[in-house]
Amino acid sequence: MRLSRYFLPVMKETPADAQIASHRLMLRAGMIKQASAGIYSWLPLGYKVLKNIERIVHEEQIAAGHIPMLMPTLQPADLWRESGRYDAYGPEMLRIRDRQDRDMLYGPTNEEMITDIFRSHVSSYRDLPLTLYHIQWKFRDEVRPRFGVMRGREFYMKDGYNFDLTYEDAMHAYDRHMVSYLRSYERMGLRAIPMRADSGPIGGEDTHEFLVLADTGESEVFYDSTILDMKLGDRGIDYYDRAGLRNICETWTTPYARTDETHDQSLFEKIPEDRRRESRGIEVGQIFYFGTKYSAAMGATVAGPDGAKVPVHMGSHGIGVSRLVGALIEANHDEKGIIWPEGVTPFHVGIVNLRQGDGDCDAACERLLEATTALGLEPLYDDRNERAGAKFATMDLIGLPWRITVGPRGLKEGKVELTSRRTGESEEMSPEAAIDRIAQIYGIGHTPE
Amino acid sequence: MRLSRYFLPVMKETPADAQIASHRLMLRAGMIKQASAGIYSWLPLGYKVLKNIERIVHEEQIAAGHIPMLMPTLQPADLWRESGRYDAYGPEMLRIRDRQDRDMLYGPTNEEMITDIFRSHVSSYRDLPLTLYHIQWKFRDEVRPRFGVMRGREFYMKDGYNFDLTYEDAMHAYDRHMVSYLRSYERMGLRAIPMRADSGPIGGEDTHEFLVLADTGESEVFYDSTILDMKLGDRGIDYYDRAGLRNICETWTTPYARTDETHDQSLFEKIPEDRRRESRGIEVGQIFYFGTKYSAAMGATVAGPDGAKVPVHMGSHGIGVSRLVGALIEANHDEKGIIWPEGVTPFHVGIVNLRQGDGDCDAACERLLEATTALGLEPLYDDRNERAGAKFATMDLIGLPWRITVGPRGLKEGKVELTSRRTGESEEMSPEAAIDRIAQIYGIGHTPE
Repeated sequence: MRLSRYFLPVMKETPADAQIASHRLMLRAGMIKQASAGIYSWLPLGYKVLKNIERIVHEEQIAAGHIPMLMPTLQPADLWRESGRYDAYGPEMLRIRDRQDRDMLYGPTNEEMITDIFRSHVSSYRDLPLTLYHIQWKFRDEVRPRFGVMRGREFYMKDGYNFDLTYEDAMHAYDRHMVSYLRSYERMGLRAIPMRADSGPIGGEDTHEFLVLADTGESEVFYDSTILDMKLGDRGIDYYDRAGLRNICETWTTPYARTDETHDQSLFEKIPEDRRRESRGIEVGQIFYFGTKYSAAMGATVAGPDGAKVPVHMGSHGIGVSRLVGALIEANHDEKGIIWPEGVTPFHVGIVNLRQGDGDCDAACERLLEATTALGLEPLYDDRNERAGAKFATMDLIGLPWRITVGPRGLKEGKVELTSRRTGESEEMSPEAAIDRIAQIYGIGHTPE
Repeated sequence: MRLSRYFLPVMKETPADAQIASHRLMLRAGMIKQASAGIYSWLPLGYKVLKNIERIVHEEQIAAGHIPMLMPTLQPADLWRESGRYDAYGPEMLRIRDRQDRDMLYGPTNEEMITDIFRSHVSSYRDLPLTLYHIQWKFRDEVRPRFGVMRGREFYMKDGYNFDLTYEDAMHAYDRHMVSYLRSYERMGLRAIPMRADSGPIGGEDTHEFLVLADTGESEVFYDSTILDMKLGDRGIDYYDRAGLRNICETWTTPYARTDETHDQSLFEKIPEDRRRESRGIEVGQIFYFGTKYSAAMGATVAGPDGAKVPVHMGSHGIGVSRLVGALIEANHDEKGIIWPEGVTPFHVGIVNLRQGDGDCDAACERLLEATTALGLEPLYDDRNERAGAKFATMDLIGLPWRITVGPRGLKEGKVELTSRRTGESEEMSPEAAIDRIAQIYGIGHTPE
């Protein structure tokens, strides 16, 4: 993409009403624009990051055997009357009346609707296990929306629902979700720690939240520092291997890690003092097992092997897709701007032309643009007639992890400069070597000719 | 995908309240479930088709140089008061009041919001031309929603907006949209005819609708049969070549083609009688040029080369993504069910095991599943313990364009059967030959070893 043809309205000034780094940087980098309180348009750069996160979530859910679908944003109130939540939910539920005077609502979550779909179509244990999920816009009418997309009103979320015959099967689903979530966060370049949590208004028995450590987090968190050394890495995961999954989940949930809601000081103090950590965290996901709460209330039963009808065991599992964009920035930025992890970056590499209009520089940049595109990468080429300083400032602000700088002096020696946004380190090399390095970083096979 | 692990709730009985083929077939094939009047959940099979259509639209818009972003579903009423449409729009606009008593609405379209984004960030002609688009859920509170997703209330639509300095530039944008739309429909396997249209409530000067011929269409259409021979085919299109684009558009809009709204009988009668056609059509897209209607009302101006501020020329351009799922079925079905064009099919090939549990049949099916998946295709393997007739009926109903049937008799001779859903013709061949044929059909390069 040529910047001259793109829509990237960066701002120099710091927006006055944005209280946290991610909100300020998303506005300054031209990622979002507020439409009304807690409701945002995703400008092209922000949209690309949102989609990258969505893609990772989809890929990992599908790998875990979960089935994508899509429920609508508006729901009939009657479904929520069945579960008893229509009255219980309070003013955060956006209630709507349509032209026929029917009570509707903008879904804040989908337990009722998915249970209705299930009970309409499934009647035998033979159709289980089943986990359905969707990624859809939701609405929570927060009394004081703030922190940009971190606590917005209209937000994008993945929510998945498992239906199982037995508690053991539902725990298998629980474990699949925990592991697929850990893998999703890792691919995004995020460390998210599973912490024993409170069940809140959804109601539940077993539940874990996933928290990203960040000073601006809304939760106080307490954990054993050994958890910081854990990593799934590239290991192959067999989501049908129950014992293997359980083992991973036990490894990850054994070290003490809790939010202030469930914190137990006496347990915490049993950890050796040098491993005790207190910090703040941002919640980016939660998994719940809630048994037959909705299935019993709404009549979602199946005939078991003996023919008797039993309510199914359910759980629900969410990842905050739009919130993750903010959380990623909270965990990855410096005073100059955002620093995207490679897994979610909106463009893989920036190309900066230090002397626009110079024949050699222009030609070298065009070749880099072409070669990186041919590899399946998305480069962003700053081809504007701007000073070098302004171009660097824009690249630093929008946070592409790698930058290739092309200038007349270097080109005379056949060199360009490859710079890491994270470390700030630069290295001179031939354009070909820079392309090879970028391909390697993004794991693109490059057969030598 | 193994059918035993999928969620495909097909129905044998014909739903009583579904009046047209696409609605009936989408319900019977387990593609959608009504959530409330005119609002649908997209079950896994329907979701896949919806996403395939969305992907084609994205790819062709990006190829045309248009930039994806995303606006929210809920909009503040104030923006619509500025354009004067808040009062003008009538009861089809779903009006919402939030907990702070602010007037909101569920966006039926986005001219106001995109104009607001534009005026907030763009002030110079140097930033033009610019075309932004998004694919987002919209709502129109139809008084009598019907025909399933064809006239639903919550619907998924691509809407794009061009901003240009001059009329000529705006016409270039108009032409880019016409050609990219024609190409999108062709890739979906649809013939959609551009017809001179009425501008309706959006207001406009130049406008064309795209209509798919189908007996159940809501519009009466009149056209010259020569347009049925036109095809873009595989030709390369340079979206920066204004004359070339204009030429394509003129070729496509020269033969008489109008809906009842703009029909002119005396012009129609000038066509040789044997080429006159009267039929019905389904609208699946529309492009508008409306000049400075919104930019003047809302102050979206840029400084031109001479420094003087001028309102920008705009147009808006829509493709009904969710409606297309219905239109595709209206144009592609028979008494047994749906017949998906290859470009949008939810699975590329069905694998039917005639004797589940037979070691040879099971092994052959597993190999087919593996080999087609390895090619990057998505097969659907019917591995249920069902009679052959039931398996064939399901495959015919859900409409996968190709089916490989594996049975004990054929396998003895090393043969499976490859069947075209469209023609019903079957051919016996080795499993390897069937895989090669499928790869060829979907244009997957298959280097001979």
